[in-house]
Amino acid sequence: MTDVVIRRVTAADVAGIVQMIADDQLGATRESVDDLTPYLKAFELIDTDPNQVLVVAERDDEVIGTLQLTIIPGLSRRGSSRGLIEAVRVAAPARGSGLGTTLIQWAIDESRTRGCTLVQLTSDKTRSDAHRFYDRLGFTNSHEGFKLKLS
Amino acid sequence: MTDVVIRRVTAADVAGIVQMIADDQLGATRESVDDLTPYLKAFELIDTDPNQVLVVAERDDEVIGTLQLTIIPGLSRRGSSRGLIEAVRVAAPARGSGLGTTLIQWAIDESRTRGCTLVQLTSDKTRSDAHRFYDRLGFTNSHEGFKLKLS
Repeated sequence: MTDVVIRRVTAADVAGIVQMIADDQLGATRESVDDLTPYLKAFELIDTDPNQVLVVAERDDEVIGTLQLTIIPGLSRRGSSRGLIEAVRVAAPARGSGLGTTLIQWAIDESRTRGCTLVQLTSDKTRSDAHRFYDRLGFTNSHEGFKLKLS
Repeated sequence: MTDVVIRRVTAADVAGIVQMIADDQLGATRESVDDLTPYLKAFELIDTDPNQVLVVAERDDEVIGTLQLTIIPGLSRRGSSRGLIEAVRVAAPARGSGLGTTLIQWAIDESRTRGCTLVQLTSDKTRSDAHRFYDRLGFTNSHEGFKLKLS
């Protein structure tokens, strides 16, 4: 198995990422891959914001994973920044290969490089495999995660 | 009781906000109010980032609450942005007055104005009063919140 490369996303990657986001027990009902226009608009917002880092993992020039890291400055904890991880996906053929660990470890290292003192994420209560995974990586399940959908 | 005004924070508010953050069962051990330098540096990062909105609630020219809202663009959910609420605090004399509701409602409205389709936050598992509060405001406790402190 050759090495995994983690790199920033370009507009050409968007279709493949949306496919990965949709190919998921929860994502399947929320995405619409037929029209990429809203996704490309969102990519512009992400790409021009220096506190957003959207990456893909590649092996043999094939995109096999993705993750978005947001750097959030704050006053709490003596003026600390924190890294927020969202939209972690591993393509079906690459699951079980340790790629999830590689992606999260990358996000932890990038957060540290950018001066963060904390990394955080939320995971749907139904994803118990993911919870064990984050436990193993050293995360503490210390918080409840609340969401409110806006109509 | 006169009306509450919610407005953006200026550098002159930082000391008072840090005092509110520290005056809390969990915050007390994490802050150091004697030296404002790191907090003022963090305020600069927040204030110059168009996706950060740090506000205070004021009544009769007195600061009685604070909240930080971060707007996060993303590819998921058809290229939706989401609002992330952090660092909600109500000053001790104003607790029980409905100010928390006013602050969260403000953050929901601001998120909607900025095109978000979701508002999210995490709350420490020990803060059961806060969990009932977010439930009442319509939030769903659907996620586990994981944190990793960086050394």
